[in-house]
Amino acid sequence: MKTCSFRILIILLIFSCTGIAQNKDQDSIMINKLFTTVLTEGKSYEWLDHLANEIGGRLSGSIEAERAVKYTEAILNELGLDNVWLQPVMVPKWTRGFKEYAYLETAGGQKRVMDICALGGSIATPSLGIKAEVVEVQGIEELASLGKEKLSGKIVFFNRPMNPSFIHTYQAYGEAADQRYAGAKEAAKYGAVGVLVRSLTHSLDDYPHTGSMTYGDLPSSKHIPAAAISTNGAEYLSSLLKLQPDLKFYYKMNCKTWDDVQSYNVIGEITGSTYPDEYMVVGAHLDSWDLADGAQDDGAGVVQSMEVLHLFKKLGYKPKHTIRAVLFMNEENGLRGGKKYAEEIKRKGEKHRFAIESDAGGFTPRGFSFDTNAANLEKAKNWKSLFEPYLIHLFEKGYAGADINPMKGNIDVLAGLVPDGQRYFNHHHAATDTFDAVNKRELELGAATMASILYLFDRYGTN
Amino acid sequence: MKTCSFRILIILLIFSCTGIAQNKDQDSIMINKLFTTVLTEGKSYEWLDHLANEIGGRLSGSIEAERAVKYTEAILNELGLDNVWLQPVMVPKWTRGFKEYAYLETAGGQKRVMDICALGGSIATPSLGIKAEVVEVQGIEELASLGKEKLSGKIVFFNRPMNPSFIHTYQAYGEAADQRYAGAKEAAKYGAVGVLVRSLTHSLDDYPHTGSMTYGDLPSSKHIPAAAISTNGAEYLSSLLKLQPDLKFYYKMNCKTWDDVQSYNVIGEITGSTYPDEYMVVGAHLDSWDLADGAQDDGAGVVQSMEVLHLFKKLGYKPKHTIRAVLFMNEENGLRGGKKYAEEIKRKGEKHRFAIESDAGGFTPRGFSFDTNAANLEKAKNWKSLFEPYLIHLFEKGYAGADINPMKGNIDVLAGLVPDGQRYFNHHHAATDTFDAVNKRELELGAATMASILYLFDRYGTN
Repeated sequence: MKTCSFRILIILLIFSCTGIAQNKDQDSIMINKLFTTVLTEGKSYEWLDHLANEIGGRLSGSIEAERAVKYTEAILNELGLDNVWLQPVMVPKWTRGFKEYAYLETAGGQKRVMDICALGGSIATPSLGIKAEVVEVQGIEELASLGKEKLSGKIVFFNRPMNPSFIHTYQAYGEAADQRYAGAKEAAKYGAVGVLVRSLTHSLDDYPHTGSMTYGDLPSSKHIPAAAISTNGAEYLSSLLKLQPDLKFYYKMNCKTWDDVQSYNVIGEITGSTYPDEYMVVGAHLDSWDLADGAQDDGAGVVQSMEVLHLFKKLGYKPKHTIRAVLFMNEENGLRGGKKYAEEIKRKGEKHRFAIESDAGGFTPRGFSFDTNAANLEKAKNWKSLFEPYLIHLFEKGYAGADINPMKGNIDVLAGLVPDGQRYFNHHHAATDTFDAVNKRELELGAATMASILYLFDRYGTN
Repeated sequence: MKTCSFRILIILLIFSCTGIAQNKDQDSIMINKLFTTVLTEGKSYEWLDHLANEIGGRLSGSIEAERAVKYTEAILNELGLDNVWLQPVMVPKWTRGFKEYAYLETAGGQKRVMDICALGGSIATPSLGIKAEVVEVQGIEELASLGKEKLSGKIVFFNRPMNPSFIHTYQAYGEAADQRYAGAKEAAKYGAVGVLVRSLTHSLDDYPHTGSMTYGDLPSSKHIPAAAISTNGAEYLSSLLKLQPDLKFYYKMNCKTWDDVQSYNVIGEITGSTYPDEYMVVGAHLDSWDLADGAQDDGAGVVQSMEVLHLFKKLGYKPKHTIRAVLFMNEENGLRGGKKYAEEIKRKGEKHRFAIESDAGGFTPRGFSFDTNAANLEKAKNWKSLFEPYLIHLFEKGYAGADINPMKGNIDVLAGLVPDGQRYFNHHHAATDTFDAVNKRELELGAATMASILYLFDRYGTN
């Protein structure tokens, strides 16, 4: 009996090992097809060309954002999916108005024009602009020690650079972004009349980078205008301040916040063959800042998400779960799309298993950042060898993405595509975020990487 | 006794484990210093700016190549190395002459100007140019089946694209490059009067890419002029040939090969503290093609090699072995510098242990390709975890680099830096190989990666 059950055990073991090996082979073949197909018959680059060059920057509430909704809805319809629809969501509308104008003026009355841009959400300056002395600080924490005495009536200039020594550039961004997001709110408490913020990029160049900011619960009478200055501009201003601490900075902006307007998340899905009522999402955000085309942030993610569904259709892959591409509106200045989607799945009781977001640029994919439990992380790590031929190595625990994050607690696995990050902040939120900064192959490899992990979680399920 | 020796064994084991752990810690600290220092105090980007923008394309035998020799010699001298010198080497001199001119002419006599460039080493056309019908082929192997009857008097148009489905772009390059290198030699055997070669890039764009070609042992009376045509041009020509097989192509080039001229490899070294007569090399090639600045190919490698010595000096690292930066002349069209260096170390009996080359662009480093025995490869792989924080994952057996390859057989380890390769061929040998295509951080990370592996082989030796 013992011998017999031992034999059975051995047979079962061989059988199950063969099964695993066969599965691995099938998976490796499928993943190879995904990569080969995207590199030879991918559509994402062509779509991005349209999104960036024909439509352009797509700030929430703009005519371009509306066009992007219609364009991506049309593309998803062309893919022959099972369902394509628009999910209504009210979004904030902020407009930049005319091009910002700024100069610095020395004690002798000499003026030098400076490139700035309003931060998203800022109020305008008075129509004749603001002119004031400048106080340079290295961060919000320095404000308290300077106090009202030194800050009242001044423009506060936040000039702490991004730390160049982090390998993951996102880490440096995270560490410096508080100046942009909360700098105006904090400086206003000390009577400052405006803020200037060093642009969030490692590069020394002439482009101001915008991005969202908040006044928090400050009464509107206390709001002060906030602008970004290029890194070269910041270096110049800082060096001049050492020579002439009483120099004055002038700037004029007429940006404005309007009433919320109607917009949409764009959604397309392939119905699951085994679990039609369980959902897996691949997504990105459709809106972008207005200074350029939003090709990297996040046009790349949008076309990659659509490409994943294109690849599945092209290869005739029938997913077990219902697979959705979700193009979220308003990540940049409100996150209303991401919040709305999460509310709706909760309201409808739609069981979500997995979501992956691409919102770090269309650069060479390096791996994934998983926001999930240990079992799912382990599961993903066991697939590492399947990704090695495609030079995908990172399977880390970490933040997944802003648009999918509101689903947390109602989903098993949140994942972020991690592309190479060294160039990203050269383009992020600036006039340099244009189509020519995206490489076709890198974009396509990112799409196939997302398709591959989605395929694996669809096939083997989540824990 | 047994117990005693067991105890001793345990003690020894603990001791040696602690030793290994301490070493790993020291190594990890040193590698961290290399990366942090390069990202905060690196010089390579500034040097590359000069090399690319002040000097420019540096084809062997040109005044620019001579200036690059002087400039890099001066930089190495500024680093306070133990020795800096020029190693004389005779190099070929080929000049492009005036800008090439080409057009295609339809049966109706309509002309369309086409962008081409002479391949390096090509003869000129007759002074009035060549006009002939075009036969498109997908590779050298197709020539035999067409034979003299169909090829005599014609321009052969090699139009096999680089295979987009390889993840390693170098593999696709290797597979398509025979058309460029040997196309003219082979087509001439069938009486062709010239060749046009599709540019070696994955990108569909308007830039012709040059590169070396050979006439082999074909008598000079049989030489025919060889040019590259942009990928967009190739697509256009191919589509038009389907409609009008009798269209004619005209081109005019006055490139010329001159007598060999004197040039130099530029060498700087830090004398080893323990093994001054054993050498480790970090290198790249100083020459470049003439159509642009040669910023990626191989200005990046040149400044990275100098940066490695800069980092060691800056951190006060005293290598055990003598460390040399070698900037090789003439990789592009002769490899005379690499051959000369290898001859000289053999002649002088200089024991070489390790050499690493950077000649695949200054993109985000991904790892190494080792041309060495199993023991050294294993040794390197055991250091993988030290590189993971810097997102360096590839430790593969493979080709190391053209300039260091002639040392093979007289050295323990040849290594190639493997940067991300997706964008490289968009710039390789074309007018697009300019300074702005290089990212400061990516360039610096590559230098620190080379410095780290060199440090480890210096510290622990080769097998």
